[in-house]
Amino acid sequence: MSFQSLEAFESLLDDLPEPDAGALAAARERNARLTKPPGALGRLEALAIWYAGWRADAAPRITAPQVAVFAGNHGVVAQGVSAFPAEVTGQMVHNFRAGGAAINQLAAGAGARLDVVALDLDRPTADFTAAPAMKDAELLAALRRGWECVDAQADLLVVGEMGIGNTTAAAALAAALFGGAPESWVGRGTGIDDAALARKADAVARGLARHGAALQDPLRALACLGGREMAAMAGAILRARVLRIPVILDGFICCASAAVLERLRPGALDHCVAGHLSAESAHGRLLEALGKAPLLALGLRLGEGSGGALAIAVLKGALACHSGMATFAEAGVSDG
Amino acid sequence: MSFQSLEAFESLLDDLPEPDAGALAAARERNARLTKPPGALGRLEALAIWYAGWRADAAPRITAPQVAVFAGNHGVVAQGVSAFPAEVTGQMVHNFRAGGAAINQLAAGAGARLDVVALDLDRPTADFTAAPAMKDAELLAALRRGWECVDAQADLLVVGEMGIGNTTAAAALAAALFGGAPESWVGRGTGIDDAALARKADAVARGLARHGAALQDPLRALACLGGREMAAMAGAILRARVLRIPVILDGFICCASAAVLERLRPGALDHCVAGHLSAESAHGRLLEALGKAPLLALGLRLGEGSGGALAIAVLKGALACHSGMATFAEAGVSDG
Repeated sequence: MSFQSLEAFESLLDDLPEPDAGALAAARERNARLTKPPGALGRLEALAIWYAGWRADAAPRITAPQVAVFAGNHGVVAQGVSAFPAEVTGQMVHNFRAGGAAINQLAAGAGARLDVVALDLDRPTADFTAAPAMKDAELLAALRRGWECVDAQADLLVVGEMGIGNTTAAAALAAALFGGAPESWVGRGTGIDDAALARKADAVARGLARHGAALQDPLRALACLGGREMAAMAGAILRARVLRIPVILDGFICCASAAVLERLRPGALDHCVAGHLSAESAHGRLLEALGKAPLLALGLRLGEGSGGALAIAVLKGALACHSGMATFAEAGVSDG
Repeated sequence: MSFQSLEAFESLLDDLPEPDAGALAAARERNARLTKPPGALGRLEALAIWYAGWRADAAPRITAPQVAVFAGNHGVVAQGVSAFPAEVTGQMVHNFRAGGAAINQLAAGAGARLDVVALDLDRPTADFTAAPAMKDAELLAALRRGWECVDAQADLLVVGEMGIGNTTAAAALAAALFGGAPESWVGRGTGIDDAALARKADAVARGLARHGAALQDPLRALACLGGREMAAMAGAILRARVLRIPVILDGFICCASAAVLERLRPGALDHCVAGHLSAESAHGRLLEALGKAPLLALGLRLGEGSGGALAIAVLKGALACHSGMATFAEAGVSDG
């Protein structure tokens, strides 16, 4: 069920599974009978019904979440766009594997399996101001790494990333996918100063100018401007859709990567919910473009899937209520 | 360590413990060395430091949260202010004890102990439009029930409530404590129609008029307008402060009850964080009056401590990161 070419990847989008109509109806009906005033669990009710539809189960629970973190390096760091040196990507991968990063703590707290996939860290993408970031074979390989990483037994997927320079790549990709001035898509990433922010906007502008009309095609835009970890996230998100595994999106880079799928086929992210609104300045705008309301807004801007992993508890809580609560009849409670 | 009179209760507020300065400083210093860009965990960082200060431990974890739900009945339901009949309070207490309510699922998901305290359900408070809701002895007994319910071994407390009619009592209490028109404090509670909403505002207005100058004193306002479950929440929150147990506040009724302490002594709620912004219309205004920014905003309006219990995961995540992450030096990661 994998794919051998970019064309085959794209053609997967022609035949995406939809939520199960019977499970959706049964979950709505169950929700109306639970011991609470109608609507009193707010967004948790809609989340539970949405999840039930994707799992084709009127009363499911979340017991096997997976967090997948992809790491890649970016040639565009040569433009002086990051506060940290590129070697930090690999150092943080070691930290993930040793259990010392934020995502380790948050995944463990959520009872989630954590997979860390480092993608050719010693071979950064090309600097997109000078050349396409990835050749077709590189893009295909990265999409496949993401696709293959998804655990078919998982019942929820969070995708996250690590990659010094990747807010620059994500800003360029978002600008290519949705239009708008480079300045409106760049932010302070890990914490850059005004001079680096100006260099970042300039690098994005030059990247957009260099690749021009090629950027009309979302997958081509990903090749020209993106990174391996970004392609892997897109591959993982598509695989989750095929497997009917709901996805929690993380921050700006994750959402820019996911947006490639949405621009290829509107509705391709219907199985995804936005985990949080990050502090990266353009994330809110990107979520609006995707039509996604975040579950959390705590000012995180770390990446690693951290905001998505924290949001697992919200979705777990929604399903615990939906599937665990008594009905009015079962509990002998008067129904309004 | 309990209190035998309302005067003794009030005098406890004269000598409240403060966060430990040494633990606060050590937690701030630890936070700066963790493997993440400065500030990248957003609000989680401030939460972890705040919690460390109250626990007098530079790197604590949350392992023993307690959720305490208090139930009471209200004479003001005679004014036609609720969508549900008063017997639902007792029915829901049975549901809590049988494990069928939302709070059972959310407390279990958070790994929290759940205590349910029913306060004289067969003896509603007096209708506050006609008389003080509680006599002094009733208020004292309810404050003590809350105080005594707190587990001294808990490391986090969520207080919640159940009580048909109690958004009306909470609206009246909030209006007494903070001023403003009755209409600006009443909301739709469990889901009342426009006619009931008008009756609710009218009942609040008549309650405020009847008790007049007595409402200048916050504890007297609680006696005149509140309910036993509201007094119990105030008692529990004060006990938590004395024990240095941080508290997550729940929705409108919880916050109105907590506000009594804040109006008695500004700063009395420094050990409390707002768990969520509920859908009850005046909750945002009340949180602003208390100077508390909510952790979640998911449109809940159920009570039971549900929003507070859901927010335990955010606080647990903050402490898991703070106390579990490696430092730059430990992980061999370059520090920007």
